[in-house]
Amino acid sequence: MATMAPPDTVPPNATPADLGEFGLVRALIARFAQTAAVIVGPGDDAAVVAVPDGRVVVSTDVLVDARHFRRDWASAADIGHKAAAQNLSDINAMGGTATALTVGLALPADLPVAWVLEMADGFAEECSLVGASVVGGDVTRSSELMIAVSVIGSVDGEPVLRSGARPGDLVALCGRQGWAAAGLAVLGRGFRSPRVLVEAHRRPAPPYGAGPQAAGLGATALIDVSDGLLADVGHIADASQLAIDLRSDAFDVPEPLHAVAAATGVDPMRFILTGGDDHALVATFPAGTRLPDGWTVIGAATEGEGVTVDGAAYEGPAGHTHF
Amino acid sequence: MATMAPPDTVPPNATPADLGEFGLVRALIARFAQTAAVIVGPGDDAAVVAVPDGRVVVSTDVLVDARHFRRDWASAADIGHKAAAQNLSDINAMGGTATALTVGLALPADLPVAWVLEMADGFAEECSLVGASVVGGDVTRSSELMIAVSVIGSVDGEPVLRSGARPGDLVALCGRQGWAAAGLAVLGRGFRSPRVLVEAHRRPAPPYGAGPQAAGLGATALIDVSDGLLADVGHIADASQLAIDLRSDAFDVPEPLHAVAAATGVDPMRFILTGGDDHALVATFPAGTRLPDGWTVIGAATEGEGVTVDGAAYEGPAGHTHF
Repeated sequence: MATMAPPDTVPPNATPADLGEFGLVRALIARFAQTAAVIVGPGDDAAVVAVPDGRVVVSTDVLVDARHFRRDWASAADIGHKAAAQNLSDINAMGGTATALTVGLALPADLPVAWVLEMADGFAEECSLVGASVVGGDVTRSSELMIAVSVIGSVDGEPVLRSGARPGDLVALCGRQGWAAAGLAVLGRGFRSPRVLVEAHRRPAPPYGAGPQAAGLGATALIDVSDGLLADVGHIADASQLAIDLRSDAFDVPEPLHAVAAATGVDPMRFILTGGDDHALVATFPAGTRLPDGWTVIGAATEGEGVTVDGAAYEGPAGHTHF
Repeated sequence: MATMAPPDTVPPNATPADLGEFGLVRALIARFAQTAAVIVGPGDDAAVVAVPDGRVVVSTDVLVDARHFRRDWASAADIGHKAAAQNLSDINAMGGTATALTVGLALPADLPVAWVLEMADGFAEECSLVGASVVGGDVTRSSELMIAVSVIGSVDGEPVLRSGARPGDLVALCGRQGWAAAGLAVLGRGFRSPRVLVEAHRRPAPPYGAGPQAAGLGATALIDVSDGLLADVGHIADASQLAIDLRSDAFDVPEPLHAVAAATGVDPMRFILTGGDDHALVATFPAGTRLPDGWTVIGAATEGEGVTVDGAAYEGPAGHTHF
């Protein structure tokens, strides 16, 4: 049996090897508050979560050190926020709300426990924004730091898929778009400002609640922008077997994006059209739907296939893939 | 957009980089059959699974190359079976049945796609033993191969926790125990026989169905043996705040274990008491419970704390931890 160090006595420079698997798990569990939906929390073979509506929404994402985050560019708390956010956003993108998450951690043996706990705190804080609990996990040793997250959630009514858009629908966006990509461009050139963009890259702020809102408004298709706006709009177009045209004048280019564009020589629309880490939502709605504040109509669906901008193919890199 | 190679045209030596993220995902999705419980299968932002009983059981496990499996000791299919089995077993250990799984794959760019697909086939085959579907996942590039699995399932009635054992309860075992550990000892010495033990290490055969059976028989506590028999019985003793004494003469030591013991000079009881990869079930039942075939009474719970064998502390390494 490994050492069972209580979380408040973890030495500042302790490594996972110092605490042992069970000690680290215990220190992690202590940081995760449980909501009323959790029937059995962490610590048994599995957790048990209430699903009153009889359906559960399920998703998973894996983050790898130096690919999905950089420890020299973001704090442990930022990385925890980001790992949670991109999973919570997948439930938002079905028109649902997350209720519970599990976290699998593959940790180099010399990684400070303090880093792991700060990451866990950021993760838990992000989950608390939607009232979701961390109900389980796994920790194991590895050479490469990896964070594997799974999330479950609930939808009221029907989940909103990528495949339901119809010709004539309007295409609308909710949430910041292009900010994280511009922040990445800033960091990649060794700068730290505009700070608001760097922060947007470090810690996305998905429009939680806008997914269920879109579902309530009668959205016909819904996706979160994770591969890049054009790529994800393309996923709706492909799944719904139609074409989508975006209008470049529909986008409000915020001042910091203009600043980065001027400094880097990159068209600010490239950040908006191809950036993917903000987890904005794109939805299609029947023409004539009155959209509340926060949503901007950015285009329309028509018969055909593929995605165009102002009626023409976009020239430039389209988005991000992992191989 | 990445290449969308249909699965039947994947070249034999293709790597994930050759197929691209979307091509690989498409090839994987094609291998995963969906059951009637799956309302929305793979390919959208999240999957949706029916949970008619209003509660979902959730667990996760991470497997890292060269730590949880060795590609020179086991086939890709074996590793897929094992990755699924240890997660399905966690639901079994709550008295439940798995319904759906997600798989996060972190893959070195030069890993053959053929290996990934064979692993996926083994994974799907194991899931089909309990009627569960793979409903989602994520693939990303990494230096180190990692398989992160999450599973959801259902319980009829109440989940059986580790904490419900009472003094006077009998302690019973269901499933092979010590076989995988003996198989590992064989492989570690460069041998390949007894084949039945090597196979048990490569591909565990958890007693699926015995978890719900134990719940139906009134089990007061339940766990699957993953850390080692003494360690996991210790988890029941700790969570239930009592002592458990195991009787060494209760265990039927199978012939192949005697053979390995003779060849390695290791007491065969060490494999049984400390081995952890068979995913046998240990349950406690009220005294007098008549147990069906497959269950063996191996000890009893009493007032006190800790785990003993024949009334004394067991001398020897107690089990496995990951740091």
